[in-house]
Amino acid sequence: MIYLDNASTTKPSEAAVKAAINACENFGNPSSLHRLGINAEKIINGTKESVARKLSVDKKNIYFTSGGTESNNTAIFGGAFANKKRGKHIITTKIEHPSVLEPFCILEQEGFDVTYLDCDSDGIISLDRFENALRPDTVLVSVMMVNNETGSVQPFNKLKTIMKEKSPLAYLHCDGVQAFCKIDCNPKKCGIDMLSASGHKIHALKGTGILYIADGVNIRPMINGGGQQKNMRSGTENVVGIAALGAAVDGYQRINYSKRSELKNKILSNIDRVKINGSDNNSGYVLNVSFLGIKAEILLHALEAKGIFVSTGSACSSNKPMPSHVLTAMGCTREEIGGAVRFSFTSEDFDIDEVVSVLKKEVENIRKYVR
Amino acid sequence: MIYLDNASTTKPSEAAVKAAINACENFGNPSSLHRLGINAEKIINGTKESVARKLSVDKKNIYFTSGGTESNNTAIFGGAFANKKRGKHIITTKIEHPSVLEPFCILEQEGFDVTYLDCDSDGIISLDRFENALRPDTVLVSVMMVNNETGSVQPFNKLKTIMKEKSPLAYLHCDGVQAFCKIDCNPKKCGIDMLSASGHKIHALKGTGILYIADGVNIRPMINGGGQQKNMRSGTENVVGIAALGAAVDGYQRINYSKRSELKNKILSNIDRVKINGSDNNSGYVLNVSFLGIKAEILLHALEAKGIFVSTGSACSSNKPMPSHVLTAMGCTREEIGGAVRFSFTSEDFDIDEVVSVLKKEVENIRKYVR
Repeated sequence: MIYLDNASTTKPSEAAVKAAINACENFGNPSSLHRLGINAEKIINGTKESVARKLSVDKKNIYFTSGGTESNNTAIFGGAFANKKRGKHIITTKIEHPSVLEPFCILEQEGFDVTYLDCDSDGIISLDRFENALRPDTVLVSVMMVNNETGSVQPFNKLKTIMKEKSPLAYLHCDGVQAFCKIDCNPKKCGIDMLSASGHKIHALKGTGILYIADGVNIRPMINGGGQQKNMRSGTENVVGIAALGAAVDGYQRINYSKRSELKNKILSNIDRVKINGSDNNSGYVLNVSFLGIKAEILLHALEAKGIFVSTGSACSSNKPMPSHVLTAMGCTREEIGGAVRFSFTSEDFDIDEVVSVLKKEVENIRKYVR
Repeated sequence: MIYLDNASTTKPSEAAVKAAINACENFGNPSSLHRLGINAEKIINGTKESVARKLSVDKKNIYFTSGGTESNNTAIFGGAFANKKRGKHIITTKIEHPSVLEPFCILEQEGFDVTYLDCDSDGIISLDRFENALRPDTVLVSVMMVNNETGSVQPFNKLKTIMKEKSPLAYLHCDGVQAFCKIDCNPKKCGIDMLSASGHKIHALKGTGILYIADGVNIRPMINGGGQQKNMRSGTENVVGIAALGAAVDGYQRINYSKRSELKNKILSNIDRVKINGSDNNSGYVLNVSFLGIKAEILLHALEAKGIFVSTGSACSSNKPMPSHVLTAMGCTREEIGGAVRFSFTSEDFDIDEVVSVLKKEVENIRKYVR
């Protein structure tokens, strides 16, 4: 099996699974006053430290959620509602993950004024247009760090400086789900007020998310109850998932050479009628390729039959029969969108030549039948 | 170790841990189109079937959340906001879990008119008062099945019939976190529109919750994004937690004789100045006892030193230095509330005589020092 769908989800690392099993034994409720509770709380604190270290922030600013989707929802709804007295203008981009776009659509229905920024053909927003969009009544900006379909990196580290001039009170949220651990992201240095991340994209388990909230940022909690996590996110913590998250973060190994470049170049030189989608300013973890004249889903299943797992667009929206909103915003043609396949990597090596050879054969095969 | 804090959390069953480990291998994203995704989706469907079977409902009505708190928040916020055009009166009781009470408080601040029903000295609401509270503009009722601090069982199965007369369009939500698997609760038979449950109270993992939503009930989703779970709860499903939940539900063994009665009777006959809190119409899983003249927290730690784990009130609020709102609503004195200890059980047996003997000694010891 060659698994190249790591942007959808990753295999839990051995260390993560081990930590999870260990946490099943330390089963106390972290809110309990007795030893079993305190042991469970220690696990949570350990992971907080690991995450904080990775982000170069203080652990008091780290909160755990049920995943990237909840983190994004909390930051966006929480940030917008807490500040609506100061203004009702909010900004995002057209190429965000659905867990950012959907909350913005809902806020729009509730009376917020939303600017959806365009991107260029590489999937990058324009900083000039961003500056022009900012207003005195802007209260929230949400821009992803790394696009989940293309791997393109936004100029997220320049946003806050621009905001300080025109919208000094607006919060900056960054969806870091495809960036956390993978590229340098120090939210404090970049002036990011809220940063979302997810466990299962970095070899931890599904069902665990991270939300970094900077000092002085006041957002309305979304899930309310027993007052866990300083009242910011109630509910008994997912100790097993959090334990696995800590181990995955500690053990995370970045890709140490550009598989993306190598795969890209070999595809370009071996297969005709292909187009690479996205900027070369890439996380290095995602390669999006349009195979013209092909339906991506057919290629996906042909590759699957040969033990190669890829994706068409993002998994989150792949069960919706809709053309990719990301590639659409980048101005791709219908044919390019229909034939787009996402290869996404992890530090584990794979035989690039084998993948290209299978790809070439299957693409030619499918094209033959389509004619 | 004698663990009598099962209402706070339970030890994951061997079968649950095994299912979790297995799901770490089946690590695909349930939304992925390829085989790994489909395998993950099968795990989710299997657990849906197990939960549906236990509740005697159809699996299409089962949704997974990150826990009881999220289930309660979703049902209450979602039910209230979706129906606010029909009316703004909502009803709950004074003895709900914080994950119910907090959402009601927030809704009150947002303009909803809330009735908080009193309970009697046994912790049971009056059906007459409930009927009187119902109004034509009532849109939501939330009453817990089993109280988490006392184990008292509310007359939840009679509520819908009463509602049909006076508030036919109102939704009935029941917090079933301490009831699911433990007492008979067939939401369809009782006319319950929404039912919350939690995995970690029944030997599954923390971070997994259940929300049953009856046919025709339209609530506003709380977490929005990729459209998972029929758009009702977006976010990649916690497959490992859901796998463990299925195994825990399938293997759940009810208590087969009344440990509660036996412990209660032995405490009453061996230790003086005690008071039992709560109704004898009890789930059988919780015994709440006030040891007069004692601070419960001191007794908790004294018992812990002897390997017996109990709780003072609920774990969710035990890190808040506030007197139990449940015992307060039941009219307990300050002394009774301050000395209240919760023993909560599971099917696993323990040496009741040993517990009573240690209790007697520690209680007498503490009382000696307090004098």
